[in-house]
Amino acid sequence: MPNPVLPIIEARVSTRHYDPARTLTDADIEALVSQATRAPSAYNFQNWRFVAVRSPAGRQRLKAAAHGQQQVLDAAVTFIVCGTLRAHETLARALQPAVDAGVLPATLAADWVVQATREHAMNPGLQRDEAVRSASLAAMTLMLAAQGAGLASGAMAGFDAEGVVQAFGLSDNEVPVMLVTVGYPLQARAARQKPRRPVAEVIAFA
Amino acid sequence: MPNPVLPIIEARVSTRHYDPARTLTDADIEALVSQATRAPSAYNFQNWRFVAVRSPAGRQRLKAAAHGQQQVLDAAVTFIVCGTLRAHETLARALQPAVDAGVLPATLAADWVVQATREHAMNPGLQRDEAVRSASLAAMTLMLAAQGAGLASGAMAGFDAEGVVQAFGLSDNEVPVMLVTVGYPLQARAARQKPRRPVAEVIAFA
Repeated sequence: MPNPVLPIIEARVSTRHYDPARTLTDADIEALVSQATRAPSAYNFQNWRFVAVRSPAGRQRLKAAAHGQQQVLDAAVTFIVCGTLRAHETLARALQPAVDAGVLPATLAADWVVQATREHAMNPGLQRDEAVRSASLAAMTLMLAAQGAGLASGAMAGFDAEGVVQAFGLSDNEVPVMLVTVGYPLQARAARQKPRRPVAEVIAFA
Repeated sequence: MPNPVLPIIEARVSTRHYDPARTLTDADIEALVSQATRAPSAYNFQNWRFVAVRSPAGRQRLKAAAHGQQQVLDAAVTFIVCGTLRAHETLARALQPAVDAGVLPATLAADWVVQATREHAMNPGLQRDEAVRSASLAAMTLMLAAQGAGLASGAMAGFDAEGVVQAFGLSDNEVPVMLVTVGYPLQARAARQKPRRPVAEVIAFA
């Protein structure tokens, strides 16, 4: 059976040119976020939050913090994908749905909270790594879900993080890790995925 | 048309129990890495490297650095997904295939190298964020590619990073960001994906 994900992985390209006339509904946007949250995270922290920017005022604020990049205005939505620090503090709550569903024993969930607190509470570097890691895993899932739905996406790391924090009132435990634009591409400006370095350069067997 | 990626995203679960009798060929492993490198990265840095651990001796070394977790022995392969620091130093080489293919003008590639060097050279914190971000994007792509191929995977953040660096001779610019096990799951021990927090808790519109 052919792998249904491969054509999606191979077709995805970081898009900068969107059709500004084609929008997404709130339900479409929520579905993409729901799919993004299926990504794994350490301890199932789910230490992420998604700000879906699509109002005219929100777009202008985001563009100003994103070096004026036009795609923030043209894409149907731009997600500010945040990873959250101090994830151990919210872990019990994050695990509750799994406990309620009988997928995770309550005693094990409690053990994880103790262990995660021991590892993370005094380690801000680990907290930041975890925020970047979880948000990136979620962002990649979101981009492939979008591609599978016939949408284009674009990951943007070039923005003023402090400006985004201020403009969108992020809390002091939220790290804006990536911006991800999603929308319908302008076919006339369609990009090609860039060829990558040969696999032999990036793999080793051990 | 139904989204071909959704069933894969929804079925993926972090697996700890593998059938140790079922292996993967080197070509299978290389294909997974090739698919992982289709992930986006800032400037198309491709600042990652994948150590595919599947020899008996390699598994033992990795298990020792991974808190003794058994799945490192049972999975067909465990990838040490590394992000690399000082990515600006290798950017010209990383972009050459895109220049050669005519997808990226050589002058633009040269501009990116200048800009990336200006941003990254004196900023070790940004270098580390970028290493974690790129490696995580690649790891997520790899896990979904594996799921689509009928394989199971498991992301592991709980390991002794310094021990992994030592045991596998990673260079001082390589950060082991995640371990990802891949193989055939033991059906008798199949896990269910844990339910997530409600979307309303992790989304905001702006």
